[in-house]
Amino acid sequence: MASLAGGLPSPDHFPVELLRGAFERAMVRIGSTGPTALQYAPTEGLTHVRSFLAAHDGVDVDEVLVTTGSQQGLHLLARVLCDPGDVVVVEDPTYLGALQAFRAADATVVGVPGDADGLDTEALADTLASGLRPRAVYVCATFANPTGATLTAARRTELVGLADRYGFVVIEDDPYGALRFDPEAPAVVSMAGSGRPVVRLRTASKVLAPGLRVGWMTGPASVVAAAALAKQAIDLHTSALDQSIVAEAMADPGFAQHVDAVAAVYADRAGALVVALGEMAASIGVPVELAPPAGGMFVWARLDGIDTDALLPAALDHDVAFVPGSAFAVGDGHRDRVRLSFATLTPSRLADAVERLGSALSSLLVTSGR
Amino acid sequence: MASLAGGLPSPDHFPVELLRGAFERAMVRIGSTGPTALQYAPTEGLTHVRSFLAAHDGVDVDEVLVTTGSQQGLHLLARVLCDPGDVVVVEDPTYLGALQAFRAADATVVGVPGDADGLDTEALADTLASGLRPRAVYVCATFANPTGATLTAARRTELVGLADRYGFVVIEDDPYGALRFDPEAPAVVSMAGSGRPVVRLRTASKVLAPGLRVGWMTGPASVVAAAALAKQAIDLHTSALDQSIVAEAMADPGFAQHVDAVAAVYADRAGALVVALGEMAASIGVPVELAPPAGGMFVWARLDGIDTDALLPAALDHDVAFVPGSAFAVGDGHRDRVRLSFATLTPSRLADAVERLGSALSSLLVTSGR
Repeated sequence: MASLAGGLPSPDHFPVELLRGAFERAMVRIGSTGPTALQYAPTEGLTHVRSFLAAHDGVDVDEVLVTTGSQQGLHLLARVLCDPGDVVVVEDPTYLGALQAFRAADATVVGVPGDADGLDTEALADTLASGLRPRAVYVCATFANPTGATLTAARRTELVGLADRYGFVVIEDDPYGALRFDPEAPAVVSMAGSGRPVVRLRTASKVLAPGLRVGWMTGPASVVAAAALAKQAIDLHTSALDQSIVAEAMADPGFAQHVDAVAAVYADRAGALVVALGEMAASIGVPVELAPPAGGMFVWARLDGIDTDALLPAALDHDVAFVPGSAFAVGDGHRDRVRLSFATLTPSRLADAVERLGSALSSLLVTSGR
Repeated sequence: MASLAGGLPSPDHFPVELLRGAFERAMVRIGSTGPTALQYAPTEGLTHVRSFLAAHDGVDVDEVLVTTGSQQGLHLLARVLCDPGDVVVVEDPTYLGALQAFRAADATVVGVPGDADGLDTEALADTLASGLRPRAVYVCATFANPTGATLTAARRTELVGLADRYGFVVIEDDPYGALRFDPEAPAVVSMAGSGRPVVRLRTASKVLAPGLRVGWMTGPASVVAAAALAKQAIDLHTSALDQSIVAEAMADPGFAQHVDAVAAVYADRAGALVVALGEMAASIGVPVELAPPAGGMFVWARLDGIDTDALLPAALDHDVAFVPGSAFAVGDGHRDRVRLSFATLTPSRLADAVERLGSALSSLLVTSGR
């Protein structure tokens, strides 16, 4: 099976030696500054880790909460921002785990469309003008899951302006921002910052390893404090060992180099996937529409006229997997889309996977008489 | 400040070398069986860790859920067992984190008294006969927090019988069971086991290190499955690295020896605290009533006629801290009790702390004219 379905980072590029060094430094620190990596920790995060992350992100210490992965950040925000029935707007399509977190809090999730420039803020403005009053607007704004799109600077300004005007919180989920393919391209500027109604969710999962379960949120101190209070009864605090390892690893001179290396691998793979999809489209005569991603882990492709839910069983028959667009839809929709992850396969295996996808598509077209 | 207040294990006895070895074996495993310690993991727990814990506890694999500390086990059980308004019975006094978890789920918490033999199951039977229908009964049954008491075998049988008869789940919180002071004493037998309406919560926090945030629950497969479903939207899974380290450390031949060594240290400290309290009682003429603990981390002492909430500021003035009994009360009550932790102080520092407590008591008695 060649899987284009996963949301997993490449296991061949986990920085085992970087993490070994970070673990060892965390153990040595026990001898000098005390056993913080092994003892119970403050719910908000270990003091030195919180300080490190605050400096890293340019915010105050009380604007940082260490979370058990950024999924927990979503869960906490859903709990502290939403009472049952409150509205949360999400870009449609969106990350399934966000939908789960908001729905678990009995929030009413409303989708607003996005495009290759991210959330359509004009459509959002219209919806708000019509009277919708969300508590939060959730976006994966940079190299998004599933679309790969990045919200433009103009739309970011517009979104924060709407948040100020209508009194909602922007949840800027940012797991992929560091995985930028063109090192020369200008860095994407986060919407977060002191005084802004924005909570940003970050994670070590895509730049170090997801097994560590370390994320952090930055945002208004009041939201961070409320989230910390909710967190206390949930898991007391995030693993002190993992927090220590993440902070040590991020402070390592080799960290930036590691992230750049992973981004370069993904850029190479993304390019190979896009080329293979173009060749497949030409060879079987099904138009494939996509925006080549500038970062992240995903291509969001439209297979013109194809029901991708129906395609999936045929694809599995051909030993290739993907996630159909419907999985990311707030309601119905995106039925002709597929999310293809290029993170875990080499270029040659990607070419092979796309060839199988093409065979599956051909078999479906034959079956349906096209 | 000499703190008898904490619930922290002794940081001087964290098994740093054992954990170093466990980390290294988890990293080596990446080379042989794949990067499970660093990659996303199943919500229920890493397959090999879950199997290890199932064998360790003598249950089936689908009766085990790895949790982000046993606090998360409490949180998940509160969510899956209780709708708002449902009744949960707890032994009164009880662990504050349990009260927080049940109250966060909007459960109605009802206290039933305990004594030196643990929860008073006769009082519970009376309450049930009068019509109370709890969804769950929560007990810290072995070397309890805060009382140090252990539920007797007869009461365990009685409690499980009541659970079967009245259709509730017994939540057996068991963080301290391995810290048994007399290695020759018969092991306490858990209430959990296949076919029983019992969920047992276990943790690596007191036998390895709490910074790791690894706990596990064992219980009916249906409860475990429901808890896993709730957990997925909360943090996806518990740190795969920490799970791997815990399983490697528990499989190490040095693990049992480490636990025995910690228990011996605590036994020594518990003895020193009990002796010091007896001397203090004799010297200042305030009767101190306590049951010397047979394991765990706490002495639950009654200071006859003393309001321990009023004593606390005087104690802090004398540079000694404790937790007043009222902190563990379901309603009012236990006002003449103190919970004293002996885990983190050496015998001589414990003697010093109790001497300061005696001075604080004397000053309070003088102030109140006794």
